[in-house]
Amino acid sequence: MNVMTTVNGVAVDKLMETIELLKARPELGEFKFRTRNRWVDGTYNRAENPAFYGAGAEDTGRQSPHVHDIDEPPVLLGEDRGANPVEYLLAGLSGCVTTTFIAYAAAQGVKIDELRTELEGNIDVRGFLGITGSVRPGYKEIRVKFHVKSDAPREKIQELIRLAERRSPVSDSVRKGVPIQFALA
Amino acid sequence: MNVMTTVNGVAVDKLMETIELLKARPELGEFKFRTRNRWVDGTYNRAENPAFYGAGAEDTGRQSPHVHDIDEPPVLLGEDRGANPVEYLLAGLSGCVTTTFIAYAAAQGVKIDELRTELEGNIDVRGFLGITGSVRPGYKEIRVKFHVKSDAPREKIQELIRLAERRSPVSDSVRKGVPIQFALA
Repeated sequence: MNVMTTVNGVAVDKLMETIELLKARPELGEFKFRTRNRWVDGTYNRAENPAFYGAGAEDTGRQSPHVHDIDEPPVLLGEDRGANPVEYLLAGLSGCVTTTFIAYAAAQGVKIDELRTELEGNIDVRGFLGITGSVRPGYKEIRVKFHVKSDAPREKIQELIRLAERRSPVSDSVRKGVPIQFALA
Repeated sequence: MNVMTTVNGVAVDKLMETIELLKARPELGEFKFRTRNRWVDGTYNRAENPAFYGAGAEDTGRQSPHVHDIDEPPVLLGEDRGANPVEYLLAGLSGCVTTTFIAYAAAQGVKIDELRTELEGNIDVRGFLGITGSVRPGYKEIRVKFHVKSDAPREKIQELIRLAERRSPVSDSVRKGVPIQFALA
């Protein structure tokens, strides 16, 4: 009989099994995630996340890709047919710190009743437009505020936020930077 | 009479007017983009991009926020109810390099007939799981391949790709890193 231990909706037994498996077979930790994008018109384009590679094989579980409409608002010359690219970055960051917080809470047996985050980032669009070299095109700063309901002590919640900051793959990527290789087919 | 010049679907006259305006009034370049996220269950959460601040005011044009379902695939303990956070990062990056490429092409009068990109990034999930300190949680590398149909010379296309690399706000953010402030409300 299998008795599954679930905390915060996370199957903790399976999480612990995964960790033990990856200690024994580190090569299974290698994942490749993918996006393909097709420009539609002006500032409007569409991205899709198809299958990925992970745990030693091409994953076959995804029946159809996840699709994202991407555009700019009118003030940035688009028609707001989707969130804009820098908003997608914040959405990914919000999801990653949330999942990291929840997974580490589950692993430690800390029950979370509610978790909301609010993110805000500053960009000076003069950098994108090349108006001045003194302003970077990217975000100057991003702020992430956690709203947590839990019986756990505030110190424990602070510790989980630090884990989310350091162990979240999107947070680590954005805080520390990632080499990107560009090529023309 | 207004005659609008459009290249690649981008209103070039309006783009040039914007650049002149921002040279005269640099404070209008300051934007704040936002995301709020609510954890649902386990690895599943939902992000929304509500109104933003830009061009000197709170933008009021967006009738409802853009909504994003975020989850993990089963091999990462979720149910694939949406792309995962690191896939959102790639989607945002794909949209940003696409729009930057197209906008700079339009500004230079370069007509683009087709633009597709393919992105792939490597992550070792042992970093997220804290199994070893020798592996970072974030992407180790991201590759972006451009497929372009245009009558422009290949050297011009290569130049536009370099502009996309350097001027895209998401590319700049991810390549060079962004300070992120974390706080508990």
